[in-house]
Amino acid sequence: MALLHALATRTGSGALFVRSITDTFACEDKTRTTMIVVMKQQATDEMIHSVAARIESMGLKAHVIVGTERTVIAAIGEKRDGEQETLSSLEEVDKVVPILAPYKVASRETKSEPTVVRSHDLILGGGHVGVIAGPCSVESEEQILESARQVKLAGATGLRGGAFKPRTSPYSFQGLKEEGLKLLAAAREETGLAVVTEVMTPDHVSLVGNYADVLQIGARNMQNYHLLQAVGESDKPVLLKRGPSASIDEFLLAAEYILDQGNAQVVLCERGIRTFETHTRFTLPLATVPYLRQRTHLPIVIDPSHGTGVASLVSPMAVAAIAADCDGLIIEVHPNPAEALSDGAQSLTPAQFADTMIRCRLVAEALSRSI
Amino acid sequence: MALLHALATRTGSGALFVRSITDTFACEDKTRTTMIVVMKQQATDEMIHSVAARIESMGLKAHVIVGTERTVIAAIGEKRDGEQETLSSLEEVDKVVPILAPYKVASRETKSEPTVVRSHDLILGGGHVGVIAGPCSVESEEQILESARQVKLAGATGLRGGAFKPRTSPYSFQGLKEEGLKLLAAAREETGLAVVTEVMTPDHVSLVGNYADVLQIGARNMQNYHLLQAVGESDKPVLLKRGPSASIDEFLLAAEYILDQGNAQVVLCERGIRTFETHTRFTLPLATVPYLRQRTHLPIVIDPSHGTGVASLVSPMAVAAIAADCDGLIIEVHPNPAEALSDGAQSLTPAQFADTMIRCRLVAEALSRSI
Amino acid sequence: MALLHALATRTGSGALFVRSITDTFACEDKTRTTMIVVMKQQATDEMIHSVAARIESMGLKAHVIVGTERTVIAAIGEKRDGEQETLSSLEEVDKVVPILAPYKVASRETKSEPTVVRSHDLILGGGHVGVIAGPCSVESEEQILESARQVKLAGATGLRGGAFKPRTSPYSFQGLKEEGLKLLAAAREETGLAVVTEVMTPDHVSLVGNYADVLQIGARNMQNYHLLQAVGESDKPVLLKRGPSASIDEFLLAAEYILDQGNAQVVLCERGIRTFETHTRFTLPLATVPYLRQRTHLPIVIDPSHGTGVASLVSPMAVAAIAADCDGLIIEVHPNPAEALSDGAQSLTPAQFADTMIRCRLVAEALSRSI
Amino acid sequence: MALLHALATRTGSGALFVRSITDTFACEDKTRTTMIVVMKQQATDEMIHSVAARIESMGLKAHVIVGTERTVIAAIGEKRDGEQETLSSLEEVDKVVPILAPYKVASRETKSEPTVVRSHDLILGGGHVGVIAGPCSVESEEQILESARQVKLAGATGLRGGAFKPRTSPYSFQGLKEEGLKLLAAAREETGLAVVTEVMTPDHVSLVGNYADVLQIGARNMQNYHLLQAVGESDKPVLLKRGPSASIDEFLLAAEYILDQGNAQVVLCERGIRTFETHTRFTLPLATVPYLRQRTHLPIVIDPSHGTGVASLVSPMAVAAIAADCDGLIIEVHPNPAEALSDGAQSLTPAQFADTMIRCRLVAEALSRSI
Repeated sequence: MALLHALATRTGSGALFVRSITDTFACEDKTRTTMIVVMKQQATDEMIHSVAARIESMGLKAHVIVGTERTVIAAIGEKRDGEQETLSSLEEVDKVVPILAPYKVASRETKSEPTVVRSHDLILGGGHVGVIAGPCSVESEEQILESARQVKLAGATGLRGGAFKPRTSPYSFQGLKEEGLKLLAAAREETGLAVVTEVMTPDHVSLVGNYADVLQIGARNMQNYHLLQAVGESDKPVLLKRGPSASIDEFLLAAEYILDQGNAQVVLCERGIRTFETHTRFTLPLATVPYLRQRTHLPIVIDPSHGTGVASLVSPMAVAAIAADCDGLIIEVHPNPAEALSDGAQSLTPAQFADTMIRCRLVAEALSRSI
Repeated sequence: MALLHALATRTGSGALFVRSITDTFACEDKTRTTMIVVMKQQATDEMIHSVAARIESMGLKAHVIVGTERTVIAAIGEKRDGEQETLSSLEEVDKVVPILAPYKVASRETKSEPTVVRSHDLILGGGHVGVIAGPCSVESEEQILESARQVKLAGATGLRGGAFKPRTSPYSFQGLKEEGLKLLAAAREETGLAVVTEVMTPDHVSLVGNYADVLQIGARNMQNYHLLQAVGESDKPVLLKRGPSASIDEFLLAAEYILDQGNAQVVLCERGIRTFETHTRFTLPLATVPYLRQRTHLPIVIDPSHGTGVASLVSPMAVAAIAADCDGLIIEVHPNPAEALSDGAQSLTPAQFADTMIRCRLVAEALSRSI
Repeated sequence: MALLHALATRTGSGALFVRSITDTFACEDKTRTTMIVVMKQQATDEMIHSVAARIESMGLKAHVIVGTERTVIAAIGEKRDGEQETLSSLEEVDKVVPILAPYKVASRETKSEPTVVRSHDLILGGGHVGVIAGPCSVESEEQILESARQVKLAGATGLRGGAFKPRTSPYSFQGLKEEGLKLLAAAREETGLAVVTEVMTPDHVSLVGNYADVLQIGARNMQNYHLLQAVGESDKPVLLKRGPSASIDEFLLAAEYILDQGNAQVVLCERGIRTFETHTRFTLPLATVPYLRQRTHLPIVIDPSHGTGVASLVSPMAVAAIAADCDGLIIEVHPNPAEALSDGAQSLTPAQFADTMIRCRLVAEALSRSI
Repeated sequence: MALLHALATRTGSGALFVRSITDTFACEDKTRTTMIVVMKQQATDEMIHSVAARIESMGLKAHVIVGTERTVIAAIGEKRDGEQETLSSLEEVDKVVPILAPYKVASRETKSEPTVVRSHDLILGGGHVGVIAGPCSVESEEQILESARQVKLAGATGLRGGAFKPRTSPYSFQGLKEEGLKLLAAAREETGLAVVTEVMTPDHVSLVGNYADVLQIGARNMQNYHLLQAVGESDKPVLLKRGPSASIDEFLLAAEYILDQGNAQVVLCERGIRTFETHTRFTLPLATVPYLRQRTHLPIVIDPSHGTGVASLVSPMAVAAIAADCDGLIIEVHPNPAEALSDGAQSLTPAQFADTMIRCRLVAEALSRSI
């Protein structure tokens, strides 16, 4: 059983101050924890002692706090896997409340200065707002080149376009694959835009990396851990989309999988969550921007196209995202949305995109930032 | 500032055991609390002392627990309103985690034996399963009498039927009002079924109470507090429906509004929550039954009609609810669903209801219970 | 059975064009409808005829469209209540898809020019952005007067403050009631701010109306129809908050209840929906603003305080709401949030509010609007 | 432009009956469609003609139906990708409502007799209820052998246990990998239980297939299309878990990816969806069982362990799932949950599992089925 070296003093305010002399030991592990173990109301002293003993047997320190109705035990120390579950499953325990966020490398508490991700003229983070635009899918040379020229003209510095397309139905268009990647690279040649495109499976990481500047992980793959590890081993920046039912902690832990492999260039992308609303394809929670800003140093990009699914809502939400202080936008633009092979309903025309960019710039400038 | 009488001892397991000698004072208030105040990582000792002092100034006891990465303070005592919010708003505080459930009278910890609600032959709770059935709305004398006869024949002991109907659109049929109540009373005269019907506004409580045996609070009104207080002053049992986005705590606190007025006969009704699913009208979470069973002594009724919104799903979910150990069912049955003025799509025919009752009884008997 | 006068012609494009000669009759009813009745795949011609006959017997016109796999029948005409449900419940019908939005008076298709709601200097709609600010609850004369002075100084034209407070727990502070209303009126006397305060039950409408300039309907009461009708009979503007699980159609239908009583001054307020997210109190979907703009002529106000529940997120979301083109904001401001009796965690200090107003104005001006 | 061969007749009921003489052509494609295109209210005849022409240019037939307020156009024929989006994006179109479910091979309309999946003594579907039980993760030889013996004794015919574990945090236990697979195979040797275990990435399909009897696709990977295709090429049955925010259509389309590769042995597993509820880990919607039964011939299994996340709720939900007529259960059982390396909080002890099996059998027998 782990020894507990504790020291009780009284603060000026009369509160009991419990300080462990082991607090000063070096902090090299990634998962220090405090868990609050709430005992059931009818728990006897014996039960409380037994749970405290159990906590100590895990190498954690147990602080028992007797309340007027219930006793809670704070368990402090280095977390191993499964401890929360184990304690939760004890008969006399009501619930276990974890206190620390489980992500580390992504945390602002680990690194307070903002991470800036750059590729060609695309800069995201640290006060720089980058705009990535282009069609949902690469459909033809003419379509992608025309898209690239138009979005560059309006001020985008990144080009989006799917070559490998995850589609809900196996019977839908699945993308031009490597041919699409080549067309994207050709568009970069001509325009200088950084190419952002999705990679769907670990085996494709090196192929896609041969052509792309930024590897995109789609929302459906946010918890495809082998894929996250594979792009974590790449030297390309990664744009990671939030899954439609992922909590912010799960989102940051997915980023952590990439960071943990040594790739520090991760961009977080909010693209809407699944809720009961049906008038939009997803619900786009812009509060994600300031909330993530407080928690992480990674840049935060908003996708108002998937976030609403309705072209007429994209522009106001893009402008609002800039006002909410995001680091970038990713927007679907198609030379002719009505002919698009996918996502036509949410794509802007080049003219609508240019108008959106003007409004975004006006707002950014009003708030002393620049796009 | 409140005095703190604390005593630190060491348990056999080496854990620090902090016991307050004020724990033994009489417990007459309803809102004893333990809150866990989580400090920000960079909080200095000075900040921690200042928050502890603030907690003590509220008349709560503060136990400071220094973690390896973060300090938490347990605040223990009699809760006044707004304390959690106040502490949350302090600059140096990361978040406040309340430990105690905020409901009291409804809690199993307050009263461990199950509450049994009875009216005529309808018995809900304590091992008795009651079935309430009938049309969504009272439409005519013939319709309600025929419904009552049929559901009684199949084994129901309660009759449902709306006289005052809350409708999403102002242009929809709003019910027969007092005329509908009279028809319900006539159906009780003939069949002996207990009448369960909705009351929508405080002014109607005595009118509806003149005819009904059980007052129903609809899901839209779960947090209509004046209405809850009004039925709390009535001597009729109340069937309280869960709001479609209410948490279980909010649901039990709504019950608490009724109980707090002195009416102890409250029945909880799960009727489905609003989720992203669209193939059913609502999502019916049957885990509510065993979860509530652990928390409260009040009877728990399931409404598979509103919980699915689809007639063909009602029967399997009714049988499953019995298997999940509910205390009752409330089911929409209409002599001719295709002619119903409301909710036809989810109403069973009398024959379908009779078949459902047979299956429910078989399952109940298999599990040594009876309907 | 209703007669069908139909005329089939061929368009230039080769499409079959079915025009009813009854289309020209005067449109005085509120619920014209088109429903698409989808037959099951195995439906025989006989079944299809039978459903068509049933539709016609309801006084609707039936257009049968035979698809390659399934037949659908369009039912057109004046909707009575319950028809959708009735048709859904038929054995041979797979589902019924309604085509028309069920609200009328609130619809932009009924009235295309924006409704402007005014009270004192508060103007909402038609290009005017109004800001309503103040504490969650009226707590004391000093608190409300100080709040009023500060928010006016920063540019608010409306004063919020609860006198009757709906609280989740019966044990929480319920407001100062009429005393609170008097203090609000005194604050208006001194500052000229329009008073916006909640009314919770029909019986209080005239009392609250004696003091308030705008009657607020809280989110919990969005479908409290007796209350909606009562404020619909009042001559005061009504600020209607969206329920946390209400669809946009349900929200507009709740407005319709008020409008239908003759009160045309309805303001819609988005205050966040309940989703799986837990890092914010609710999820604030700003896409509601442009979406509602397309559907309704009523002004649209955003509540970033309840919409996030976290003070540090309020300001960015307020600025984003302005960028999304809302007609107003309602924000919680308290002279001393840490002492607030309710909602302290989401209240801004006067200084934070003044800073927010500056940023909101900068964005509004950049987009050629003014606050 | 496609020719339209249409024939208008009048039914006995007076409804217009539009039958295309092309309806009889052979149906070899997989995505026949009917879309209902709803025009905006103010759409002129010219606009309507133009949209109809556009529909015909897609090779679809257009039926224009003029309503009293709005015109709708039914588009019928063979669906290509992107058509719905294209039509939605047209200025004069309000929305497009698709009528047909997009899955085919999984549909009951394609194959009405139930699919039965068998491996060793595990039989799922066609009236057979199979129970798969075992620990969350394989931890050691002793643990998995002991688990296998115990669950077999209680009546399970399948053994679950993770060798490759998808974990939300990169710092959590990731499984014993191939060593775990060997231990599972050893447990099958001894007990005869069919081994069900997860495969996480396409590269592992053949490795896992060497040891496992049923390949499990986890909820996080439900839309990992390369993985779905890889298991679709395997000759092992696949247990596909529903993603926590997947609609039923998306779930069936994921199954369709597997079926489309020629693997007909797909088992659907409902394991709970993400909702606003927090007292359970997920919300388990048992209505999925009867709803899927109506739509698909594939067997349907319920996972009450992940579906609730709380051991004390697992048994009642397992029994309820049987009552709802599922084809199987998958339940976490651990010889000593308090020592489990993962998911201890939701694991049953062998004794609790044996008791659950007894109750499940009683209910199954009461409903004339057998486990």
